[in-house]
Amino acid sequence: MAQMLSFQTVARYQQRVRAVAPLVHCMTNEVVTNWTANVLLAAGASPAMLADVQEAEAFAAVASALLINLGTLHQAQMQAMAAAVTSTQRAGKPWVLDPVAVGMLPLRTPFCRELLHEKPTVIRGNPSEILALAGEAASVRGPDSTQGSDEARPSAERLARELKTIVSVTGATDYITDGERTLAVNNGHPLLQRVTGTGCALSALVAAYVSTASSKNEILEAAASACTVFAVAGKAAAQKALDRNEGPGSFAVYLLDALATLDETTLESKMQK
Amino acid sequence: MAQMLSFQTVARYQQRVRAVAPLVHCMTNEVVTNWTANVLLAAGASPAMLADVQEAEAFAAVASALLINLGTLHQAQMQAMAAAVTSTQRAGKPWVLDPVAVGMLPLRTPFCRELLHEKPTVIRGNPSEILALAGEAASVRGPDSTQGSDEARPSAERLARELKTIVSVTGATDYITDGERTLAVNNGHPLLQRVTGTGCALSALVAAYVSTASSKNEILEAAASACTVFAVAGKAAAQKALDRNEGPGSFAVYLLDALATLDETTLESKMQK
Amino acid sequence: MAQMLSFQTVARYQQRVRAVAPLVHCMTNEVVTNWTANVLLAAGASPAMLADVQEAEAFAAVASALLINLGTLHQAQMQAMAAAVTSTQRAGKPWVLDPVAVGMLPLRTPFCRELLHEKPTVIRGNPSEILALAGEAASVRGPDSTQGSDEARPSAERLARELKTIVSVTGATDYITDGERTLAVNNGHPLLQRVTGTGCALSALVAAYVSTASSKNEILEAAASACTVFAVAGKAAAQKALDRNEGPGSFAVYLLDALATLDETTLESKMQK
Repeated sequence: MAQMLSFQTVARYQQRVRAVAPLVHCMTNEVVTNWTANVLLAAGASPAMLADVQEAEAFAAVASALLINLGTLHQAQMQAMAAAVTSTQRAGKPWVLDPVAVGMLPLRTPFCRELLHEKPTVIRGNPSEILALAGEAASVRGPDSTQGSDEARPSAERLARELKTIVSVTGATDYITDGERTLAVNNGHPLLQRVTGTGCALSALVAAYVSTASSKNEILEAAASACTVFAVAGKAAAQKALDRNEGPGSFAVYLLDALATLDETTLESKMQK
Repeated sequence: MAQMLSFQTVARYQQRVRAVAPLVHCMTNEVVTNWTANVLLAAGASPAMLADVQEAEAFAAVASALLINLGTLHQAQMQAMAAAVTSTQRAGKPWVLDPVAVGMLPLRTPFCRELLHEKPTVIRGNPSEILALAGEAASVRGPDSTQGSDEARPSAERLARELKTIVSVTGATDYITDGERTLAVNNGHPLLQRVTGTGCALSALVAAYVSTASSKNEILEAAASACTVFAVAGKAAAQKALDRNEGPGSFAVYLLDALATLDETTLESKMQK
Repeated sequence: MAQMLSFQTVARYQQRVRAVAPLVHCMTNEVVTNWTANVLLAAGASPAMLADVQEAEAFAAVASALLINLGTLHQAQMQAMAAAVTSTQRAGKPWVLDPVAVGMLPLRTPFCRELLHEKPTVIRGNPSEILALAGEAASVRGPDSTQGSDEARPSAERLARELKTIVSVTGATDYITDGERTLAVNNGHPLLQRVTGTGCALSALVAAYVSTASSKNEILEAAASACTVFAVAGKAAAQKALDRNEGPGSFAVYLLDALATLDETTLESKMQK
């Protein structure tokens, strides 16, 4: 059985992030740069983005965590990412891999396999991506998943054991697993699928959260806390948008508001379904 | 005389897009990536963006349609675009050309002429761009048009005949033409000029709509339906923003909401001016 | 003592920008392209962005002003920026330098020193960046400043004298100085720190405003007017968001609204704290 975190645990990680304002170096796709930065800022973290290989490498000394997102990968970015991962490893800091649309595409798929050797602290993907990483046949159809997270959970757990890492597969229910212990996060709202880059931004938030963790178990909990905060904020935002007969434009705005204003009381009430 | 579509025709194409959720591969400018993706998602389509030449080429097999937007063209993107257009042609899928600021600029202007030989399914531009493509002297002043769409309509019709394609010139009134039959879409609201990338996003929406068409006449109607849905959503959004003494920030949010929530009744009432 | 502009002066520059709609060529970082364009459009200016070196160079003939922002600098962009600065200088048009995160990073730091020889019309940065440019030890921590603007004011004044330029250091209070005369702008709201790219967008707005100035003193006043309009719009937006228990998502939307709707009366009342 997948466990759920208590709201107190989630609130503890949320407070840590807000207190520390971890500096997350985001090497991400060009569609979501602005949105990812605003999600981090709303949640109390601090974003930084660099493109040049030398600068990306040098920045590991300053950053709290690194995010690698393969969404619009190109040759120069691939080199910068590889350098940043190496220097982040050397600095003993965590990094998160978001393997966007891995499986079929010719540049990212082999690159992603190389990155797996560099031991990402956390891998966060949608079910299709996690299935593809685990070597299962997955029907990838662009950046969106065609499978549910329940279907991908066993593969996530096996992948986590094999790579000795944390894998988070997100969907209607998010599963976050180290291969032995699996945490479940409910509350994912369908409106999250109607705004681009919600998964991408969540990966950045996971990087912010795990930068405050100091053991494998804390990393698991921190990653699940990031997923919980995001899902609960999404639930609150969706409720507000739907109450007002609004749609995904307003929802995205309210999601940022909710990430910034979410308190322990709301966390508690919304986590009880 | 330019004809207008009935709201039933527009609603039919809108339903098709929402039912199929066509996957639109957008190779667009860096200013509007996020906005374009959110417009597509709100309207019921599914966006995908790739930067690498090999990946862009491979993706034609999966995508429903391709958008080429020249806004921030650079060498590497030019190569990726050329490869993607070729493989899209080979796969027998439609592609839309948005010739941003064509006319004076030294990289895009010759590249755009090459692309015209590849028979875009639809060309969507503002009046200055369409006049420039047609070889008329147009006063291009950055990405915005200094001419009205009425002025550019004859050039659009001639261009459509010469290239055997559909040309859409958008402005206060949009004209969509195959050179013989010309459809008109009113309702364009001035606030659309106060948000960046509304034209760019409309081109992506046209790609989504024409991917559901199966004859030249359907392509014409699908393109005009995309323009109508966008204009009507813009009108609804502008009304809401102005009623509340708000401005272009709120308008952009409401436009996404309206694209997602627009139903046949609203379509009918708003299309009657 | 730092002076403050009268609301009449600020309103005069605001009217000029709205009347002329200056075309600002923004060579900026990939995180803020869309946001910067929307800020310019809301404020009555017209944005244009180009990536290719030849196109960037050619565009100086058409643009009213150029913005150089180093946020996600890479090799190809560096070349395009250098070409654009040279042709802008030759065309006798103003350009603004936003030296994002200058100080430690290996590509931008030497490049920024080269750019200083090209006599930027205005330099706008946060306190850490201005201290770094002035050769003071500054603790740069990503794109955000760890120092206050009061601390950086003497360095800004010295830098302005040495480079014979205008330096604007922004924070809770903005200082805009030619080294002899220093203008102060209050009203900076903390919520501006919770939205990415507010400083970057302000730099673009400064470029728009100074393009309407025709003497060194007017450039100083125009730059300070841009800072004032932005700060006052921010104050109005923050008030609205906080009144409604909203957060940074809504604030960013209202900021665009306020830039578009801000009139002389609001300017007057909000400038009196």
